[in-house]
Amino acid sequence: MTTEELSDTHGLPAAPSLLSTAHERIEPLLREAVGALQPELRRVCGYHFGWSQPDGSPTYGVAPEPPLRAALTLCAAGASESGRDGSATHSTDAALPGAAAVELVHNWAALHDDVMDGEALRHGRSAVWAVYGTGWAVLAGDALLGAATRRVLPTGADPEAEGAVLRLLTRTTSRLVSGRSAELALRRRAPEGISVEEYAVVAGARRSSLLECALAGGALLAGADERVVEALTRAGHHLGVAAQVARDIEDLWSGTALSGRPVMSGLREGGPSLPLIAALRAGNPAARTLAQSLGGGPACPPPPDELAALIDHAGGRAAADEISAWQLTEALTQLDKAALPAATHAALRALFRHTVARG
Amino acid sequence: MTTEELSDTHGLPAAPSLLSTAHERIEPLLREAVGALQPELRRVCGYHFGWSQPDGSPTYGVAPEPPLRAALTLCAAGASESGRDGSATHSTDAALPGAAAVELVHNWAALHDDVMDGEALRHGRSAVWAVYGTGWAVLAGDALLGAATRRVLPTGADPEAEGAVLRLLTRTTSRLVSGRSAELALRRRAPEGISVEEYAVVAGARRSSLLECALAGGALLAGADERVVEALTRAGHHLGVAAQVARDIEDLWSGTALSGRPVMSGLREGGPSLPLIAALRAGNPAARTLAQSLGGGPACPPPPDELAALIDHAGGRAAADEISAWQLTEALTQLDKAALPAATHAALRALFRHTVARG
Repeated sequence: MTTEELSDTHGLPAAPSLLSTAHERIEPLLREAVGALQPELRRVCGYHFGWSQPDGSPTYGVAPEPPLRAALTLCAAGASESGRDGSATHSTDAALPGAAAVELVHNWAALHDDVMDGEALRHGRSAVWAVYGTGWAVLAGDALLGAATRRVLPTGADPEAEGAVLRLLTRTTSRLVSGRSAELALRRRAPEGISVEEYAVVAGARRSSLLECALAGGALLAGADERVVEALTRAGHHLGVAAQVARDIEDLWSGTALSGRPVMSGLREGGPSLPLIAALRAGNPAARTLAQSLGGGPACPPPPDELAALIDHAGGRAAADEISAWQLTEALTQLDKAALPAATHAALRALFRHTVARG
Repeated sequence: MTTEELSDTHGLPAAPSLLSTAHERIEPLLREAVGALQPELRRVCGYHFGWSQPDGSPTYGVAPEPPLRAALTLCAAGASESGRDGSATHSTDAALPGAAAVELVHNWAALHDDVMDGEALRHGRSAVWAVYGTGWAVLAGDALLGAATRRVLPTGADPEAEGAVLRLLTRTTSRLVSGRSAELALRRRAPEGISVEEYAVVAGARRSSLLECALAGGALLAGADERVVEALTRAGHHLGVAAQVARDIEDLWSGTALSGRPVMSGLREGGPSLPLIAALRAGNPAARTLAQSLGGGPACPPPPDELAALIDHAGGRAAADEISAWQLTEALTQLDKAALPAATHAALRALFRHTVARG
């Protein structure tokens, strides 16, 4: 991506324009991957990506999910100032298949997560399982994961980087699965017994692993050196925790506007949430009232808005805000350590802030 | 595998001993893959493989599913008489990771298939989704697919063969997904409108793709030449169709003994089946009676045993028997064309017959 592409009209990179550029570059590859599927799966995946109605007819005015992870990959490919052959275009071109793969992996996880959670909304529309049934959602996820792997099969053009990216993607899918398993296990435990750190590790790990992969993959494909790849991996880790905690806050207090999910869906699903865990551990009278309300058992939980107010009163929201902000600061510090070219650095800063605010 | 390992007491290879040898060689790799998973997933997968009870305690007397595909891979590795370095042991050792990968892919497909079909029995025990819920079955499948891919990541030991096997496995998972999609689409159509050939292509394709992968993968990893790989691929194709048609016959008339599934489960699930399709196209009075029975609509289908008798009477069973036998003959003809070492050839013949009779 050239400096020009990365900048808004004031010469500063703006997340929306970065996302829109990434969308334009990545969508043809996603459409190609989906186009190669069997007709029924093509329809299911086309619906999932917002390109068509449930019956396969084209949509108008459905805003696609911004390809945040692909944008991170494409920007991170600017880590190596001019790519291996000295051309700036080359470095992001080399990262395109990786960027598509990361988006495909994200969508595999989204399709299967919605099945596991019985979550009927995805980005403001009905989830695939709710439209076509569980079987098709499972199969569509499997299809997208397969397409992701095919995108990063070694071509022989750059054996070392290609091998590293393939291993990175494989490790990432495996971390997503383990993270999901740990999270399902955590949900079965009483929130009183979960520490803030434990929750941040488990819930953050799932979100982090794909962000780490997006950032490190872009750098690897552009031929950046190991030090840069490592700094970006650490940045991705903190960014994931910051974004997950921000999402927990949003789930409790912001409604459907950003996530496309109903307000307080996390609490209704009985999953732990960082504000809740922090509130329970605050040791103040509001925390005790909150614990007593939850102690009423699943048969008579207080209404979600009452719970949210208690969590806020006990200090859970403030604690979560603080943790999210601290993790974002850490992510930006690690980004500084990568010592990237100025335009790349500014673009990634903008995307990091956007990820936490909107991701 | 040495000639000795491949032979029964009469010096002839017997499928049960080949399967039991494959089991002994492959199980440690499967246990290693499952052992690397997060504890909850380890328990779910341990149950799936028959190693443990639902609560994780060990099982006694649960016969594991014979690793048919791994046995095919290990035997096919005998295609190259003595492997690349001149040692017979080397050639099947080289094929071990591939054999484990093929079994892991089979189990990914099994876990997800049972979710899609709502099939509550697998190899005579409750399916994972019926024990732990749909979410865990989806996740366990994802975990095993990831483990399969990791098994065949290039190590650099033999870049050409390793690259070919990785591409083969990726193509196979993608064919399994497309085949499944085509099959789900076929199920929604009236069986009267489906030709025998069309059914054989769709239903056979799913079963064939993994058998082709098992055979070709073994040959590739052992360093066999392209002509052998191609002949084994064609053999795997016909073997898959033969086995699928045999399974259709078994589903209608043999009960739970072999498949671990209830008798006539295919008909009850409303899926097409080759005997049914062939019977409907027989053009005799029994075919017309059958068509009339089915025309009663889903609200009042005839009892399954009555349907099975009608299919038999119209000639559907005999037609299916003939097709399965012809496809097995074709598979064995292709096997002959591979011009394999005698012991390997005899072992694969035995496994082919076993696959159709019991697979």
